[in-house]
Amino acid sequence: MKHTCHDSLLSVHGPLPPSLKYKYYLITQTFDVQVSLCVPQFTFQSRTLQSMGEGENNDKFFTHPRNPKALAAYLFAHNHLFYMMELLTGLLLMVLSLSEAPAVPSLRLDVYVHATLELLALVMVAFELCMKLRWLGFHTFIRHKRTMVKTCVLLLQFVEAIVVLIRQTSHLRVTRALRPIFLVDCRYCGAVRRNLRQIFQSLPPFIDILLLLLFFMVIFAILGETHKHTHILYFNTLENSIVSLFVLLTTANFPDVMMPAYSRNRWSCVFFIVYLSIELYFIMNLLLAVVFDTFNGVEKMKFKSLMLHKRSAIDHAFQLLVSRQRPMGLSLKQFDGLMRFYRPRMSARDRFLTYKALNTAGAPMLSLDDFYKFYEVIGLKWKARRSGEHWFDDLPHTTFLIFKGINLLVKSKAFQYTMCKWTSIISSGFSSSRIVPWSYIVFLTIYGVEVLLKVTGMGPLAYFSSGWNLFDFFVTVFAFLGLIALAFDMEPFYFIVVLRPLQLLRLFKIKQRYRNVLDTMFELFPRMASLGLTLIIFYYSFAIVGMEFFADVVYPNCCNTSTVADSYRQINVTIGNRTVLDEGYYYLNNFDNILSSFVTLFELTVVNNWYITMEGVTSMTTHWSRLYFMTFYIVTMVVMTIIVAFILDAFVFRMNYSRKNKEPLLDPEDENGIVFEAEVSRDEALATLELYKQTCPGLSSLNSLQGVLVAMDRSGSSFLVYLGRRSRTKSDLSMKMYEEEIQEWYAEYSRENLPQSDRSLVERELEIPPPCPDPEPQPNSQGPLSIN
Amino acid sequence: MKHTCHDSLLSVHGPLPPSLKYKYYLITQTFDVQVSLCVPQFTFQSRTLQSMGEGENNDKFFTHPRNPKALAAYLFAHNHLFYMMELLTGLLLMVLSLSEAPAVPSLRLDVYVHATLELLALVMVAFELCMKLRWLGFHTFIRHKRTMVKTCVLLLQFVEAIVVLIRQTSHLRVTRALRPIFLVDCRYCGAVRRNLRQIFQSLPPFIDILLLLLFFMVIFAILGETHKHTHILYFNTLENSIVSLFVLLTTANFPDVMMPAYSRNRWSCVFFIVYLSIELYFIMNLLLAVVFDTFNGVEKMKFKSLMLHKRSAIDHAFQLLVSRQRPMGLSLKQFDGLMRFYRPRMSARDRFLTYKALNTAGAPMLSLDDFYKFYEVIGLKWKARRSGEHWFDDLPHTTFLIFKGINLLVKSKAFQYTMCKWTSIISSGFSSSRIVPWSYIVFLTIYGVEVLLKVTGMGPLAYFSSGWNLFDFFVTVFAFLGLIALAFDMEPFYFIVVLRPLQLLRLFKIKQRYRNVLDTMFELFPRMASLGLTLIIFYYSFAIVGMEFFADVVYPNCCNTSTVADSYRQINVTIGNRTVLDEGYYYLNNFDNILSSFVTLFELTVVNNWYITMEGVTSMTTHWSRLYFMTFYIVTMVVMTIIVAFILDAFVFRMNYSRKNKEPLLDPEDENGIVFEAEVSRDEALATLELYKQTCPGLSSLNSLQGVLVAMDRSGSSFLVYLGRRSRTKSDLSMKMYEEEIQEWYAEYSRENLPQSDRSLVERELEIPPPCPDPEPQPNSQGPLSIN
Repeated sequence: MKHTCHDSLLSVHGPLPPSLKYKYYLITQTFDVQVSLCVPQFTFQSRTLQSMGEGENNDKFFTHPRNPKALAAYLFAHNHLFYMMELLTGLLLMVLSLSEAPAVPSLRLDVYVHATLELLALVMVAFELCMKLRWLGFHTFIRHKRTMVKTCVLLLQFVEAIVVLIRQTSHLRVTRALRPIFLVDCRYCGAVRRNLRQIFQSLPPFIDILLLLLFFMVIFAILGETHKHTHILYFNTLENSIVSLFVLLTTANFPDVMMPAYSRNRWSCVFFIVYLSIELYFIMNLLLAVVFDTFNGVEKMKFKSLMLHKRSAIDHAFQLLVSRQRPMGLSLKQFDGLMRFYRPRMSARDRFLTYKALNTAGAPMLSLDDFYKFYEVIGLKWKARRSGEHWFDDLPHTTFLIFKGINLLVKSKAFQYTMCKWTSIISSGFSSSRIVPWSYIVFLTIYGVEVLLKVTGMGPLAYFSSGWNLFDFFVTVFAFLGLIALAFDMEPFYFIVVLRPLQLLRLFKIKQRYRNVLDTMFELFPRMASLGLTLIIFYYSFAIVGMEFFADVVYPNCCNTSTVADSYRQINVTIGNRTVLDEGYYYLNNFDNILSSFVTLFELTVVNNWYITMEGVTSMTTHWSRLYFMTFYIVTMVVMTIIVAFILDAFVFRMNYSRKNKEPLLDPEDENGIVFEAEVSRDEALATLELYKQTCPGLSSLNSLQGVLVAMDRSGSSFLVYLGRRSRTKSDLSMKMYEEEIQEWYAEYSRENLPQSDRSLVERELEIPPPCPDPEPQPNSQGPLSIN
Repeated sequence: MKHTCHDSLLSVHGPLPPSLKYKYYLITQTFDVQVSLCVPQFTFQSRTLQSMGEGENNDKFFTHPRNPKALAAYLFAHNHLFYMMELLTGLLLMVLSLSEAPAVPSLRLDVYVHATLELLALVMVAFELCMKLRWLGFHTFIRHKRTMVKTCVLLLQFVEAIVVLIRQTSHLRVTRALRPIFLVDCRYCGAVRRNLRQIFQSLPPFIDILLLLLFFMVIFAILGETHKHTHILYFNTLENSIVSLFVLLTTANFPDVMMPAYSRNRWSCVFFIVYLSIELYFIMNLLLAVVFDTFNGVEKMKFKSLMLHKRSAIDHAFQLLVSRQRPMGLSLKQFDGLMRFYRPRMSARDRFLTYKALNTAGAPMLSLDDFYKFYEVIGLKWKARRSGEHWFDDLPHTTFLIFKGINLLVKSKAFQYTMCKWTSIISSGFSSSRIVPWSYIVFLTIYGVEVLLKVTGMGPLAYFSSGWNLFDFFVTVFAFLGLIALAFDMEPFYFIVVLRPLQLLRLFKIKQRYRNVLDTMFELFPRMASLGLTLIIFYYSFAIVGMEFFADVVYPNCCNTSTVADSYRQINVTIGNRTVLDEGYYYLNNFDNILSSFVTLFELTVVNNWYITMEGVTSMTTHWSRLYFMTFYIVTMVVMTIIVAFILDAFVFRMNYSRKNKEPLLDPEDENGIVFEAEVSRDEALATLELYKQTCPGLSSLNSLQGVLVAMDRSGSSFLVYLGRRSRTKSDLSMKMYEEEIQEWYAEYSRENLPQSDRSLVERELEIPPPCPDPEPQPNSQGPLSIN
């Protein structure tokens, strides 16, 4: 029996001859290209974007393997083990800079050690590239831009690493700034790639407004320079004038730059007020507006093309699935075949319920219109609707009543308000004292019990899938850790005790606006993380360049020729009869190793007083160093503006949505849910069971279907209602927001695309056999040959 | 004949008995309440908002005069002379602070002088209030909140002014901070009032997020304080800790606050990085998002209620205008009666053309649906469509050809590009030199001639009504002034020469994005100005409070006990054998008089280094002074966030709009225009002329109608096409953006409002006689008894 199921599409390593394997692969690929898009959007951006990236990313259609030999390489290069290797190699290369030449003291390595490590990593990268070459073929390899760039950088790094190994000393290696390319190129960093692309898309309008900004800056610089007799010091030459105004744009030198002129003539403040009003309060906001707008446009375009991509995938899949005899509909058997192939881990019951959820009309066949809802139902988790849906429903009556009472108490609004009020009183009252009142412990115990009840009741997986539960859990665990730290007097963990006021965060759950804020935060988190990573990659490149040029140029009491010498001073001053160290501390903001560089760059990002670092470095090197700092400022400005635009967009969208739909949003656990219903009658269940027994009798997943019948028997009714839930995603929100526009897009799409046009890949004749996956999916495979 | 027209509704001062006057007034009022809303929106916000404000502003329905005596007071208090007096009184009161106690040295006045002036101004305000009392009646006066507040403040100020006059010295008069109330209350400051209202509407969500911000600040402050052994100086007490983190939120003390701890332990930077990431980069953006969102919502609600208000006005006016015999339509005669009343300065021809523009179907009567377009056509400027629409069309043939050639040349794209290119080369090449190449003069002359041609051709009024023409004009005039300044070597105007690169701004016209920017700027300008005024009013109040408490507290070499003593130092330092004045200059940022206070407050608004001013003042006064500075920071943060949100909203809206409509927007002069067409045949014109002759034969405005016939005779055709133009407004944009929603609003509105409900004010029987205004409107009246 096992062998019947073995000729499924999954088992490509089976005993089939290569030619047949390739034929199967071709079908798979058709499915992949189209159906791999059918992945539901679990979280806000991650999967959505992944699907989106497909078309223009590394998996362009032309990059698919073209013959059985290439397929082997393709399969080798597309699994988590290989991806992990890619990621680790990239990370290793980046981490190396901790121990190279201007190294972190405690991590310093000998030249031959780190050069060897680097060579090793580069060899790994070369190996990965060879695999890719094999799979893509030389012609495609050349055409694939990103891979070509990677290859060039790799060659360069190779040469440099060998030179370092031979000379046994590091030379000026600015090219190390290119190392993030290896990391960015790896499979798991897709989100970072997309961010970079989005940043580049926002650039043209950004640059336009930037030019406007610089234009006014130059005009004011000229104006300031001609009045140099009043604006001494900061405006004595045109260069100084421009630099002063550039820094003024960041406000970092504000009242200081005005003061000398202001002390001479009080009306000179007008110059600065006008400059700041135009540049800072108008054009800078314009910059934000333009980026925000571009960003919005890009997001909507992405959503549109995702929707159309999905629709075309469904169209195509439908065309492939329907049999010639009944071209207008899909039977359960055909649908089940697709699902087994597409979601091998799904139980037979869930496949059947999904079919039922799609088939709202209750017709014997699934029409194309029904089938269009495919993505909405594919991620549902099915559960029989029970009377109260509590975990204790099956317990004996007395126990049930007790638990029911606790449950009702815990869920009641009055209880929640009391808890919050108490929490706020307790946490604020003794925030920094070490004495813990018993009431605090009582409340904490209640919270702890609540968490335990919920975890056991809902099961750990279901419990932790909700952001609010996670939040509750961590706040409670944190509080307990604090208590333990206090009890055992563990000094280093004492800060946890201080964080007791974090209990107040529970108040979040009650106020609607905070709830929105936190919900959006949960949704934003993956995207924010990838934006942070993008920023870090920029930091890394700038840090390397900074280290190569400015390592060890600033030190205590340097920069005496500059205007900021005070900030670098470190002298002993005698006040009365005490000797005090008068420290400027700014020598700490240096590029002496990569960690210091990161901190320095963060300070430059925050902008305040950044000119002190710039002037210090400039006075010890050349005037051209300013270019480095100014470039960095502009780059972070772009990234930061995009981050701001992104946060703005996400929140405004969210708030619009909840205003548009005026949801009650009262129960924190349910609010993100999308619920579908499917009613199963006894006859249907029996018929389906029979069907499954015929097609793939040996499958253990049939048990789940038999479970439906058992449940019916127990409840004594002839039908059962199942509820399918999944969390709401950005895509769902967008679909509601753009309801009308989506219809237009579809109409436009169906005018343009005749379904025949993209059916040339696989012949219409090739009827897909309903494949039966192995009962236990192979540990190595990630389901079907998915290309994402 | 004059007497027939005299019993029009306008001439309330005529020989009619008071009872009849009041009866007429009642009709006018019905019209006013409804029809005064019919004012077209000339500019983006000014009029729109004015109409909007009506309902909830000082002109609530219940504030209208209720008897003939009150009417006299109402009329007295509602004309530009009275408004101007109100404004001047308000300004005088505010300007007084220049010469009061901590006065600007050159404007210092004796106590009895400025106290007398103040009393005078207050008496004026009291007089205005008395007029209002007379008009409103005591009962309504008490119910009108703003007026009551004004009265209380007035009484307080009166008492204080008398006390000052008696004691002959100023006491601590913080109440002077309330003086802006008198200015804000005056008629011309309606925009400021609306801004204030909008700011208060945005407050609740703002405060929510602010609390979140402060909450995290306190947690971090506690955390910082418990580690005071590493964070010396800035975190030694909880108060210092909170203040340091508050300042850190503004980034004003950034690397400095971290440096002592960072020099002891490099990992302490994590504390600051986490704090800034949460507070500055997340919650502050959230703040912007929330304000932006609230702002957007308020704008849309305002637009909606304006649209419904307009519709109800039209409904009502239609009901009043149609006669009982023909209740379904409006004849030209009736429409003309309305227009003479509503727009007394409009010529008969324009009234007729407006009717034609409304009556698109060409039916004998105007239906309600046609009438709904009333506002769209009411502001049109009518002009016969001529062959080329050039001013030289009527000239002899040879001259015409020459001008035609010049015109074509000037308007050609190639010419514009060449000019711009030349301009850019010329302006950038010798920006700061004093030598003017002849090519520059040639181009300037061409520009000058172009401006002259346009002004003479289009007429000054039409020319200056376009933002782009104004822009051209000023750039050219500026360049000429520069040349003159250079020629006569006028040193003080030399800066104009330096501004020569401003010629480059002409490039704006070519690039689409800059065009959008400038267009939006023109539209934004009135609103921006009113926002600026609002900010200045806040500044004024804070400046008064600052002056009362902090005047003369900082001086050179003060503040030696604070951490910022360096910035206030003014000592002679001997370097080598030269004596140099080492100045900290910060003592200049003081509250010694109102002008200095304004500059200081601007510096606080820019935020950078604001803590130096705060710490300086604090060290010379008490710790509570910090409250003043922190409050000011939060208030400006609100206003600034709203300004940012406003700019963002306006630009994003504009860009969305131009994306949605994909207009070519190529000709700068025409792009803002909305054009209606009306075709007039000879017969129609004659019939209309006859009609007018019957109703009001003596009117000079008939000439305009006869002009139509003359023009027809001259052109020899039996019909003429007239084009009505007006500039496009925000309201037009909004109507296109929200097209679908507007239909919904209307549907909802008509379900809710039965037209009968608001027809009780004037009986259905009162047929309005078509009134003929005097040929020359009375100089004192502003048209019909408009309430706005």
